[in-house]
Amino acid sequence: MEILLRLQPVGYVETDYSDEEVSEAWPHGVEGRIVIYPRFSEGIIGLDGFSHIIVVAWLHKIPEETRMTIKVKFKRLIRLGLSIEDVPEVGVFCSDSPHRPNPIALSILRLKRIDGNVLHVSGLDLYNGTPVLDLRAYTPSYSIEGYVLPGWYTELLEKLRKMRVDWDKL
Amino acid sequence: MEILLRLQPVGYVETDYSDEEVSEAWPHGVEGRIVIYPRFSEGIIGLDGFSHIIVVAWLHKIPEETRMTIKVKFKRLIRLGLSIEDVPEVGVFCSDSPHRPNPIALSILRLKRIDGNVLHVSGLDLYNGTPVLDLRAYTPSYSIEGYVLPGWYTELLEKLRKMRVDWDKL
Repeated sequence: MEILLRLQPVGYVETDYSDEEVSEAWPHGVEGRIVIYPRFSEGIIGLDGFSHIIVVAWLHKIPEETRMTIKVKFKRLIRLGLSIEDVPEVGVFCSDSPHRPNPIALSILRLKRIDGNVLHVSGLDLYNGTPVLDLRAYTPSYSIEGYVLPGWYTELLEKLRKMRVDWDKL
Repeated sequence: MEILLRLQPVGYVETDYSDEEVSEAWPHGVEGRIVIYPRFSEGIIGLDGFSHIIVVAWLHKIPEETRMTIKVKFKRLIRLGLSIEDVPEVGVFCSDSPHRPNPIALSILRLKRIDGNVLHVSGLDLYNGTPVLDLRAYTPSYSIEGYVLPGWYTELLEKLRKMRVDWDKL
């Protein structure tokens, strides 16, 4: 069952890096900009001073057929040095894979500075031109104290730690 | 400029509380369930053991006219005891107000247990029947260390603290 939703992009991603460079920059991301359309520019009043923002974006370049992905491997961890056997197959909802039923990104970006309606960010993992659907300041509501992870996840983190990978997330 | 996006709800919110009761339960939320449609049920493999999930939901009951909201007051804080003068007006992107250009919710819920394709949750701030567009495990990627808040925000938190409100978020 599908629904058609009428959405109004509030802005878009701008970066000087190519899609390939953005992909290869994982997990650290690239520098770039979130450009807010003038009619929504008052929406960022008060945003200055937050160190991080959450960007909700529509991954418009994700191929249609990958929207049927239900189980995933953390393939990006193989790039960090793990073997394919070390990486379990889990449900797509345990992962941030862009290949998912609705290709919506939740990207937490570092907000470096604001020039008018342009937010300068780093840690960007979105391609140039990606439509931005929503934006949130990263507030204490998003920082959950004492959250718990399952065994399979902490074991993967432990493997990365032993490999001295400069990354403590999956 | 609007775009039509074809989305497939992966499930929906179920709660025995009325919409009014859910609204009044802020900030602590109510108990409820996220029911995953059978065709997506393998997507939750591996989710057991995460203490929290992020639910991306389409706020289908938000009136059309509130989608033009660009500046907001944290009205909910008035309910906690702050005066209207104490609450600044800021851009909608600094807030989690459901009245926003695209009424998409990002709700972090406590995952209590999983029965088949039903996720039992608490901290629910979504109405019964709300379509769920996406679901993520709350992983270290979402927990930003050393994030910074602007002065106006920390001043509000300080005011709440002085009022001994049992809530450290806006």
